[in-house]
Amino acid sequence: MPKTTRFHHLTIALVIALSLMFAGSAVSKANAAPKYSWKLAMTWPTNFPIFGDAVQKMADLVKVMSNGEMEIRIDSKNKHKAPLGILDMVKGGQYEMGHSASYYWKGKDVNLMFFTTMPFGMIAPEQYAWFYYGGGMELMEKAYSRHHVYSFPGGNTGNQMGGWFQKEIKSEADLKGLKMRIPGFAGEVLSKLGVVVTNIPAGELYTALERGNIDALEWVGPSLDLNMGFHKIAPYYYTGWHEPATELQFLVNQKKFDALPEYLQAIITTAMELSAYDMYSRSMNDSAVNWDLIQKDYPDIKIRTFPKEIIAKLKIENNKLLNEQAAKNPMFKEILDSQRSYMKKVRNWTKISDYAYLKDNISE
Amino acid sequence: MPKTTRFHHLTIALVIALSLMFAGSAVSKANAAPKYSWKLAMTWPTNFPIFGDAVQKMADLVKVMSNGEMEIRIDSKNKHKAPLGILDMVKGGQYEMGHSASYYWKGKDVNLMFFTTMPFGMIAPEQYAWFYYGGGMELMEKAYSRHHVYSFPGGNTGNQMGGWFQKEIKSEADLKGLKMRIPGFAGEVLSKLGVVVTNIPAGELYTALERGNIDALEWVGPSLDLNMGFHKIAPYYYTGWHEPATELQFLVNQKKFDALPEYLQAIITTAMELSAYDMYSRSMNDSAVNWDLIQKDYPDIKIRTFPKEIIAKLKIENNKLLNEQAAKNPMFKEILDSQRSYMKKVRNWTKISDYAYLKDNISE
Repeated sequence: MPKTTRFHHLTIALVIALSLMFAGSAVSKANAAPKYSWKLAMTWPTNFPIFGDAVQKMADLVKVMSNGEMEIRIDSKNKHKAPLGILDMVKGGQYEMGHSASYYWKGKDVNLMFFTTMPFGMIAPEQYAWFYYGGGMELMEKAYSRHHVYSFPGGNTGNQMGGWFQKEIKSEADLKGLKMRIPGFAGEVLSKLGVVVTNIPAGELYTALERGNIDALEWVGPSLDLNMGFHKIAPYYYTGWHEPATELQFLVNQKKFDALPEYLQAIITTAMELSAYDMYSRSMNDSAVNWDLIQKDYPDIKIRTFPKEIIAKLKIENNKLLNEQAAKNPMFKEILDSQRSYMKKVRNWTKISDYAYLKDNISE
Repeated sequence: MPKTTRFHHLTIALVIALSLMFAGSAVSKANAAPKYSWKLAMTWPTNFPIFGDAVQKMADLVKVMSNGEMEIRIDSKNKHKAPLGILDMVKGGQYEMGHSASYYWKGKDVNLMFFTTMPFGMIAPEQYAWFYYGGGMELMEKAYSRHHVYSFPGGNTGNQMGGWFQKEIKSEADLKGLKMRIPGFAGEVLSKLGVVVTNIPAGELYTALERGNIDALEWVGPSLDLNMGFHKIAPYYYTGWHEPATELQFLVNQKKFDALPEYLQAIITTAMELSAYDMYSRSMNDSAVNWDLIQKDYPDIKIRTFPKEIIAKLKIENNKLLNEQAAKNPMFKEILDSQRSYMKKVRNWTKISDYAYLKDNISE
């Protein structure tokens, strides 16, 4: 064998070895195809602001922190056509991940409604403390283990407004027969006071309120209400009682998560947790900016809070409904008791900290 | 050259190449020595709860998310002996990172005091919105670029209590000559009302208050005050006005950060941001739990808020001091204006959201 051939053999061995080396290196040093390609289904439409941006932020963080090893493709409801089928699709493994809100699963499993927000419940900083330091995450894991998925906080809207009303609510009598769009458990509570609760698709809400098919509706707050345009057609904007800290939710298929290497589990978990907190800051900002815009363009919008007698009555009906359910469902009772006892403590702290401070720094 | 020798050459090439490949792989698959070993200096002593735990959480996240590629060693003040030298040590490169509070650098660069908290300023959720969505991060980067370090939020204590007092403060006259430990800019403001402001090392505070060498002191809030034991020797616990959202701070040497690969920059940045938010939830929880303990063991502790006339006077003196500085320092003015205009908007939102809600859900 001539010298050149020997050299050639050496070269081939090196080229193979080096190309293997670079292939290995490429996986951890990006550019190559990702080693893990996941799909996420979300309840929201394509380009839905704030909610959709939080999901995108999570996916971007996973991609950059894993140096391209892991990618998560996001499918909106426009693609998968099942906005309220997220839990089932993640459970069944069609999607490794989902993004939705836990209270949407109330009909399937009533215990899951606690992990979004509760009427007269905790505000966002209190609720985050409950999730991460007050036993909330453990209870959520326990409740979701029946469905073989992991659940994580997925972004907070902040305190939601009580809704847009065509007429001022001065007494309980004004609620009797009032047609209002308000979904979920809060709707159940309001219906006990005589409100006729309806559910109407988002795209038809403006017209329904304008034409008088409904007398009132709740959506989110200035952060997302501005684009809906309700301030152009309803003069009263009520403060909230029903969703003081709406937390969205990431869902992850247990088997798929458990099969990931530890560092990717840590990367995903951290990306979800940060995106959730970040959405709370984003919501705070967008609510502030949009409320300012609404006030400038529509200075006659009137902020109202329900009269004390109505608030008191709503609290009674709320507790009645919760206690009824707790009497027949031990896990429901366990979660309810945890939230009630935690809120008592944390609200005592809020009272002498942020609340006492705000009293001196807000002009009525 | 005999055949065996040629084979030998091939083998060597393969062994070298393969060992390089596995070395590369080992770095990204843990167990090996970390590729990046950084050191962090913090202002706090060894085992300092909450603050120190937030730093540890950040370092743990970096290690697990980088799969062991990067480690950060934490030096407490017991080791480096320079609790207030963190900015200089990170700037000088002796440490790649630091953990401290931005208002400690007021004497070196008065513009840096804005990034912790300000008397009568924003509460934590408002301030996070300012940092991440209201221009705060950009202003912080601008202010710190003079010092060649990057600065990041490093954990929030929540609203700090106004302090422990031996006597009730009923009017401005009660403040004249009152000896109080309260550091920083808030001390400057209080001194305008006749308070004799002193600074006393942490370890001597309890004895100073017990023996009457001081009449009052502020520390943090129940989360950290409980261990100090002040509730055993002072009957009045005043609500806060001076530090509504104390945010600690991570510092990173610019050159060291810029030299990291993009995915490690993302991992560190995400770990810092999450640890900061997480410390806010931890502080909320520990304040709630510890305040509950204090109330149970010392039910006679009286919560007080300064009379309206004093609050009004403090606001006037606070604004006077800030405006004086703004008149001679354009960057100071830029940051002050940003915080003031943002707070106006975001407080209008807080007023109709969390504040309106709490008013209906807190019994006085």
